[in-house]
Amino acid sequence: MAKKVITISREFGSGGRTIGKMVAEKLGYKFYDAEIIDRVIEKSGLSREIVEKYDEYATHKSSFLYSIAINSVNASTETYHGTSFASQVHIAQIKVINEIAEEGNCVIIGRGADYILRDRDDVLNVFVYADMKFKCDRVLSLYGETDKKIEDRIKDKDTKRRVFYRSFAMREWGVYQNYHMMLDSGTVGLDRCIDMICDVAK
Amino acid sequence: MAKKVITISREFGSGGRTIGKMVAEKLGYKFYDAEIIDRVIEKSGLSREIVEKYDEYATHKSSFLYSIAINSVNASTETYHGTSFASQVHIAQIKVINEIAEEGNCVIIGRGADYILRDRDDVLNVFVYADMKFKCDRVLSLYGETDKKIEDRIKDKDTKRRVFYRSFAMREWGVYQNYHMMLDSGTVGLDRCIDMICDVAK
Repeated sequence: MAKKVITISREFGSGGRTIGKMVAEKLGYKFYDAEIIDRVIEKSGLSREIVEKYDEYATHKSSFLYSIAINSVNASTETYHGTSFASQVHIAQIKVINEIAEEGNCVIIGRGADYILRDRDDVLNVFVYADMKFKCDRVLSLYGETDKKIEDRIKDKDTKRRVFYRSFAMREWGVYQNYHMMLDSGTVGLDRCIDMICDVAK
Repeated sequence: MAKKVITISREFGSGGRTIGKMVAEKLGYKFYDAEIIDRVIEKSGLSREIVEKYDEYATHKSSFLYSIAINSVNASTETYHGTSFASQVHIAQIKVINEIAEEGNCVIIGRGADYILRDRDDVLNVFVYADMKFKCDRVLSLYGETDKKIEDRIKDKDTKRRVFYRSFAMREWGVYQNYHMMLDSGTVGLDRCIDMICDVAK
């Protein structure tokens, strides 16, 4: 069957976001990365500062929160009272991702969307990675130097994503059983990744 | 750069072997699966019965053996004396896989070839998997029923491959960093897997 929702999990610097954006363009799908943040702000009533702070960052209570969110998908923002800001962000994120998937024809970057949408059969889950040399070159050309070594920036970012995913989904990030395609963008090439994903989604 | 060697690791029942065979046909590459057994028999002087028994089955000493094999790639079969049959099979297998890769333009199925050839840059490593329903249907249609439940046959076979790989390579089977593409053949489809692999290898 055609895949109305494509989730892209990605190592930092692998080009996963760019691949997702191009896939969305080619298929005429909507693209959600930072766009999720806007919807979460709207839904939760929280400030941009708080939502950006906890976007894809782990809290100890995420797995517990997940069950709260699932059991109150249709509840109003009142449900959020009495939980931490981090929890409120994550609950709103789960709701927003479910809404987006329900609207269909979309590409969603990160945020455990593969896990949140695991019971749907119209979702294609993709994981994009690359070797460290490829990622360093890409991060350097896109974001430039900072005080911190590029390799450390990449490792730190991916560790945060891994910890977020684990605490949120209670399963491991990057384990093949959770994805339909896992592509080394450095070897496969970004253009080929885009073509392959579009081809499988159709 | 063009990939002269394609290794395909595969879950039992995923169609990885068939995909590899078709990729070899399309690219005009040689195909090695059971063909490796013939070469190992020739190289080691062991009986077919023994070689088939220890093909892709773990021995406790494999990681130790690996260093023996690496340090005696050009040694004659005399090197094998004094080691167990399992060890002799695995040492010969490492030598045969190195020889095959050196000859180039080939597809190699399983046997830790991705690990054995990890220092070459002309190798494309692919992992093929699928969900249990797809694998059960495929195993049933290809091999029929036996006394043992199909799902248990699949799990047992993959556990043996996983244990063999771990003892042999001292790393985990199916971990994405060891492959360039990992494809769920049930979702992607066998024909698309074949096309994608050929396209990337070129």
